[in-house]
Amino acid sequence: MPDPRLAAQLDFLLTCDRLKAVQRTTRLHDGSRFENSAEHSWHLALMALTLAEYAPAGTDMEQVMRLLLVHDLVEIGAGDLHFDAAAKALNQQHAAEAQAAAQLFALLPEAQAAEFTALWQEFEARHTPEARFARALDALQPMLLTWGQTADGAGGLGCTETFPELTVQRVLELKRSALAEFPQLWQAAEQLLREAERAGVIKP
Amino acid sequence: MPDPRLAAQLDFLLTCDRLKAVQRTTRLHDGSRFENSAEHSWHLALMALTLAEYAPAGTDMEQVMRLLLVHDLVEIGAGDLHFDAAAKALNQQHAAEAQAAAQLFALLPEAQAAEFTALWQEFEARHTPEARFARALDALQPMLLTWGQTADGAGGLGCTETFPELTVQRVLELKRSALAEFPQLWQAAEQLLREAERAGVIKP
Repeated sequence: MPDPRLAAQLDFLLTCDRLKAVQRTTRLHDGSRFENSAEHSWHLALMALTLAEYAPAGTDMEQVMRLLLVHDLVEIGAGDLHFDAAAKALNQQHAAEAQAAAQLFALLPEAQAAEFTALWQEFEARHTPEARFARALDALQPMLLTWGQTADGAGGLGCTETFPELTVQRVLELKRSALAEFPQLWQAAEQLLREAERAGVIKP
Repeated sequence: MPDPRLAAQLDFLLTCDRLKAVQRTTRLHDGSRFENSAEHSWHLALMALTLAEYAPAGTDMEQVMRLLLVHDLVEIGAGDLHFDAAAKALNQQHAAEAQAAAQLFALLPEAQAAEFTALWQEFEARHTPEARFARALDALQPMLLTWGQTADGAGGLGCTETFPELTVQRVLELKRSALAEFPQLWQAAEQLLREAERAGVIKP
């Protein structure tokens, strides 16, 4: 490559292709296969575009999109984590992700590496309104795929095979910290679970 | 759902899940499988974030990201098209996509449906600087996957199996209109093909 800066950026982008091979524990809505983290990230950015009105006034939606595009990249080195994992596994996961982030972002020119690292850290810290809204979408999306119903009647198939112990009450406990501060999204999540319970794909 | 507006938006987002099942003609960089249009759209938005400096000054990169997140959604009804298809097939494709766009975006509340339709039409028309840069990334990304090499030596495998007739000269002809106006990206694309030619994965 004649331009080493651009060559480094393209090398980074090619390495990011590996996110398409990181499998999540959520199935696509039709149940056909597990979702990967790259298409998941796209879905979240599209949610940000579609559901922007439910973020508090003044939330920078461009930043929300940036956070969502980048938030899972560290899984390229570290893998995805079950959302109900024990605290010990979580700590190990954080260490593995920090190492993966350092390695991956180091492929970029220095100032840009710092920018991407900052995006990832902002998402992880969940302090800014942008990171909190991004995290809420990240919490809502797998619920939609797993238990959601389209208006034309296609229903999510649940996840009793992968997580037989999950109940409406347990899911709400797990999701409350990410979602409850966005009342409309939280209400929609509760409603979605109640409908899935009536459809018999999750226990109360 | 208690809130019909939010219910409509979630219905749209669940329907968009089907983009993950639309298969492209490009393989992942490691050759393991064909790429789907959802993960492709994520990759393009990430490219916009990483390669913003190669767009002309004043290009609205938030709009570029929006265009890229939405540009392939119409394939949910219409399917992806080989980039070298005959003009007749292209016309049929455009009609199928327009119909698919109308159906899909009609799931959204009215004003938002108009917004998303406008994004798709802006991308298709390729008049604005944002649409032109988005289109350039869309032209570069499959080249990267197919013929690119990472710094650690992993090379693209080419596509002689799916497109045996492709040569460096033919690819450059096909890509010129999208890429040549961005000199650094165009130079990188040429260089990438020359290296792939040396590696024996494409004919001159």
